[in-house]
Amino acid sequence: MGVRKKTVQGFPEKTLSLEVLEELSGMCRKARGEVLTMTTLAKSGHPGGSLSSMEMYMLAYGVAEISPENCETLERDFLVIDHGHTSPGAYAALGAWGFVDSSEAVAHFRQCGSCFSGHVERSVPGIDWGTGNLGQGLAAAVGYALALRARGISKRVYALMGDGGQVKGQIAEARRIAAKEKLGNITVLVDYNNIQISGTLDQIMPFDIRKLWEADGWEVTECDGHDLQALYAALREASSSPTPRVILCRTVMGKGVSFMENTPEYHGKPLSGEQYLEAMKELGLAPYLEEASLRRSRNTPPKGREIPRYPVHVDTGTPRLYEASEKTDNRSAFGNALGDLGKRNPSGGKNTPLLVFDCDLAGSVKTSGFAKALPEGFIQTGIQEHATATVAGAASAGGAVSLWADFGVFGIAETYNQQRLNDCNGANLKLGLTHVGLDVGEDGMTHQSIDYVGLFRNFFGWRLVVPADPNQTDRATRYAFATWGNICLAMGRSKLPVLTREDGTPFYDASYTFEYGAVDLLRDGKDGTIFCMGHMAWRALKARDMLLEKGISPRVVHVPCPLALKDEDIRRYASSGAVLAYEDHSLHTGLGSILASRILSLGYAPAFGALGVSRLGESGVSEDVMAEMGLSPKDVAARFAALLKA
Amino acid sequence: MGVRKKTVQGFPEKTLSLEVLEELSGMCRKARGEVLTMTTLAKSGHPGGSLSSMEMYMLAYGVAEISPENCETLERDFLVIDHGHTSPGAYAALGAWGFVDSSEAVAHFRQCGSCFSGHVERSVPGIDWGTGNLGQGLAAAVGYALALRARGISKRVYALMGDGGQVKGQIAEARRIAAKEKLGNITVLVDYNNIQISGTLDQIMPFDIRKLWEADGWEVTECDGHDLQALYAALREASSSPTPRVILCRTVMGKGVSFMENTPEYHGKPLSGEQYLEAMKELGLAPYLEEASLRRSRNTPPKGREIPRYPVHVDTGTPRLYEASEKTDNRSAFGNALGDLGKRNPSGGKNTPLLVFDCDLAGSVKTSGFAKALPEGFIQTGIQEHATATVAGAASAGGAVSLWADFGVFGIAETYNQQRLNDCNGANLKLGLTHVGLDVGEDGMTHQSIDYVGLFRNFFGWRLVVPADPNQTDRATRYAFATWGNICLAMGRSKLPVLTREDGTPFYDASYTFEYGAVDLLRDGKDGTIFCMGHMAWRALKARDMLLEKGISPRVVHVPCPLALKDEDIRRYASSGAVLAYEDHSLHTGLGSILASRILSLGYAPAFGALGVSRLGESGVSEDVMAEMGLSPKDVAARFAALLKA
Repeated sequence: MGVRKKTVQGFPEKTLSLEVLEELSGMCRKARGEVLTMTTLAKSGHPGGSLSSMEMYMLAYGVAEISPENCETLERDFLVIDHGHTSPGAYAALGAWGFVDSSEAVAHFRQCGSCFSGHVERSVPGIDWGTGNLGQGLAAAVGYALALRARGISKRVYALMGDGGQVKGQIAEARRIAAKEKLGNITVLVDYNNIQISGTLDQIMPFDIRKLWEADGWEVTECDGHDLQALYAALREASSSPTPRVILCRTVMGKGVSFMENTPEYHGKPLSGEQYLEAMKELGLAPYLEEASLRRSRNTPPKGREIPRYPVHVDTGTPRLYEASEKTDNRSAFGNALGDLGKRNPSGGKNTPLLVFDCDLAGSVKTSGFAKALPEGFIQTGIQEHATATVAGAASAGGAVSLWADFGVFGIAETYNQQRLNDCNGANLKLGLTHVGLDVGEDGMTHQSIDYVGLFRNFFGWRLVVPADPNQTDRATRYAFATWGNICLAMGRSKLPVLTREDGTPFYDASYTFEYGAVDLLRDGKDGTIFCMGHMAWRALKARDMLLEKGISPRVVHVPCPLALKDEDIRRYASSGAVLAYEDHSLHTGLGSILASRILSLGYAPAFGALGVSRLGESGVSEDVMAEMGLSPKDVAARFAALLKA
Repeated sequence: MGVRKKTVQGFPEKTLSLEVLEELSGMCRKARGEVLTMTTLAKSGHPGGSLSSMEMYMLAYGVAEISPENCETLERDFLVIDHGHTSPGAYAALGAWGFVDSSEAVAHFRQCGSCFSGHVERSVPGIDWGTGNLGQGLAAAVGYALALRARGISKRVYALMGDGGQVKGQIAEARRIAAKEKLGNITVLVDYNNIQISGTLDQIMPFDIRKLWEADGWEVTECDGHDLQALYAALREASSSPTPRVILCRTVMGKGVSFMENTPEYHGKPLSGEQYLEAMKELGLAPYLEEASLRRSRNTPPKGREIPRYPVHVDTGTPRLYEASEKTDNRSAFGNALGDLGKRNPSGGKNTPLLVFDCDLAGSVKTSGFAKALPEGFIQTGIQEHATATVAGAASAGGAVSLWADFGVFGIAETYNQQRLNDCNGANLKLGLTHVGLDVGEDGMTHQSIDYVGLFRNFFGWRLVVPADPNQTDRATRYAFATWGNICLAMGRSKLPVLTREDGTPFYDASYTFEYGAVDLLRDGKDGTIFCMGHMAWRALKARDMLLEKGISPRVVHVPCPLALKDEDIRRYASSGAVLAYEDHSLHTGLGSILASRILSLGYAPAFGALGVSRLGESGVSEDVMAEMGLSPKDVAARFAALLKA
């Protein structure tokens, strides 16, 4: 793969020279041919928007300080594509600048096993955020911009967007965060071709694009999105704006091929073989569909790169030990640990900067201590959860360690698809969910996060930790910051007793180290096992006491990592006898369901039961709501005793 | 419970008379006392915003044509509360107008088992939409307004909102839908007290409220939200506006109690006993905390009403029979059935009006036929899925039958929390998910809806149908429209063979009736069972053919309703021998996981295996992507044979 020396980078000149203009123009023409060849060959893809975005792609990847050499590092500009379906345009531009081999992209576009996917993914060098679900790109750009600022790096973030998706509400949220944080280091380019899948913007959903951006405090300029000189001038001007700025690039869908221009049909439809020949002729290019086709069938599709990970240095401090006599809630233990982290990792030091995000719930989710210890690392984003989830995720991919804390219903139920894309993008987000389960207090059904395990089970990368008491919470919080990856800590609202051994000393004591995937044998026994999760652990121990009085001695095993149960623990604790799962979570999708699948798949057949949330819950004091749901310790004892008899 | 005759209703007079003003003012004063009494008694709740919204609540419930008598019917105004946490204010106003017994609300607020929940729910008469997760209320109001229009009813919808939550992106989406649809029958009142949980609006997330609404085409007026006369004038003027209008009500957080006014602390904090006495004194009211407390402890909490359901009349027409020789995709069969429904249920007729919602994907999700047959029932909402999910849900609760069709990743992953609230609200939404599983074509991981079963499993009310072929799709679509409740149909993208019996005739033939929860014994056998779901059914039959060649004869059972498996079917088909689950869905959360839980809970121990999606998928032709994932018929045959040997 030949690496092209950039003809443009940054804005050293006021205008582009004629030579450069001519070269760029030639690159665009060649790239248009590649867009048509790859989509015709793959018989799918989105040529129309790829052609209208072509000059935007070519020039943005040109002026941005991103190169094949630095795109794995953090000391550079970033570029986020929101309209991920125009991937052919992106791949062609990346090819022109030497990030990828154009002919590989052309040959292996949308082929199983190739990195040149239908929508852009980070496995392609130069792609900083995988998108395709519209509306998340701007928030990702905001996250990168915040990470740059936190790291003290004067680089820019470019975000490229389509126009149809401008009406996604998440974009407005991201705009406001950028404006509040005065992120002058973001430039947005909108491919304003006025056409979306089913027709013109006005036919589908009318909106005043300029007013929308201006209402949220952005500067708006316009230019002809196919005029490279005008586009350069707009980008150059934006680069010195102290305010985030959007450039509305007036473009033509299908630009460059007469019969494709302004035709909605070509939004998502490739050309026929005949049309392809005609189009290439118009572009003055020799067709090479057959050559590309041969390559597609003969060669192995390129896998692309591993998603970049960066070394993270966080001083996680000294664990706090909560004594057996103390009673506090897990969220306070989490908040205390966060506060420690804030103190030990001051900004401007050698360590990776910490960013903590809040959606106006700091007092409840206990991030106020961090805000006090490290105010410049605390970002208040208001009641804008969709954007916040993505902003925090992208910030963690951009060299900060970010944490977002929120109630369970907002941090995962409301933002499930944002967390799914954080997973696809291999981010390093820490998510603190509080008020999970029926332990949300009196807020009622709309606030009961009884599905968080069920939601995280759908992801392949996220780790989930549900600590049992303040000591385990403290250790798990520090673990999360020391470990790469998306990690969620889930906590209830109520104060909990510190779990102890039979001798009364803390179970998770000074010698305890949190290990992802390990279970905690809280009490051994000979009559089967009660598996419990999170804030049900102390209740399980209470149930065990009741059973002991009846001469029944169950083991109590706490599962802090329900997604990572080990086969050996299933064999050891769940292969025979009575097994009862006990959780403050939907019966259908939580620990009980996980245990059952694993047990049966391993070929065991214990007497199995599960206690969990079986309907929408009431609004009342958590203890009352749990009792009403049949989840009190005496319910557990009764159910376990019944299982033994069965 | 005494029923108060309304002093105001509609806008017969230009201004309120002094007598009426005095009466309303007295009602507000008494209601303020109730807010304070119930929150102090419950030791939780949100008094601050309840007091600032008080005149809005009292007057809106007054002028709106909603009464204790008509609130179970559809021929009336509707009123949606977005800031559901100000429930004490709503309950007190509803008490004043005779919808509920105020003293019951005061005594049983936030008590387990009571309908007077922390956030408003539909079990309280006069509450038209349960909220609490901010941002969904306006979309619900838009849904009701569309349903009114579709039913040809000239009534209004009032939406009451707080100010802090104005930044939720979903609100902007809903505004645009209202403006596009010219819903002059909506009036919005914003409680503009300028304070949210952690401080003033400007401190948390600055925004220009007027610009936001105006940018989306709304008329904006302002008034003093505590001046009943001014509020009446603003409401009256809005009632004759052809354009949707928002009234920014300038209010004071904690209004009426000097030490609560403009104090963020009282957003979510009740008064102490001492403060309560002082506050009641200021309001000129006798305290009655003890009396209310006695009542709370002695009486059974009131359960409230059943969520209203309305008779629905839809002509579902004659099933279409797809012959064995035809090959089409399920989404086209769905679209054809929809088209039939559109033709058979013209607007203006006796039948319940149909509304079909589209987020700019009609061509792909096959709702274009309906749009042609019944254009006035087809609502294009643009790429605004969050609002659309709620709009469609509320429209179905407002007397239309609504359907929203979208790709799986948008219809459930992106809008999980909206569908969760549609569940809480007992709506009657039909959801058509297309492109589910790896069968999305070449779009890649961001578009692979491999979690939809896992997501719906978390709900307690939604029904989910995953049809196996075009014939079952046709029947299930008609079933969904004839049956009350939220029902989802999930379909892949590719063309499928029509399933047949061994004699070559269609399996789901003219005599077939779709029954929710029933499984389909596609082929009997004596060597165990392959359970399959949706578009994997024909592949399972192909695997069976391969196994037959090796002398192995598995049963093939199709499960179209994975959330409603019957115990008897588990016993009959999965209690012993080899059992293999086979699905185009995450291995962790779909059919396999459901089967395992149910099998183990029923005490059976077959040799169990599961084949499904085990990682993020590739971008390529669906068959290739499935093969790469190990989900081709030969993988099934191999795995089943291995299970038999185990």
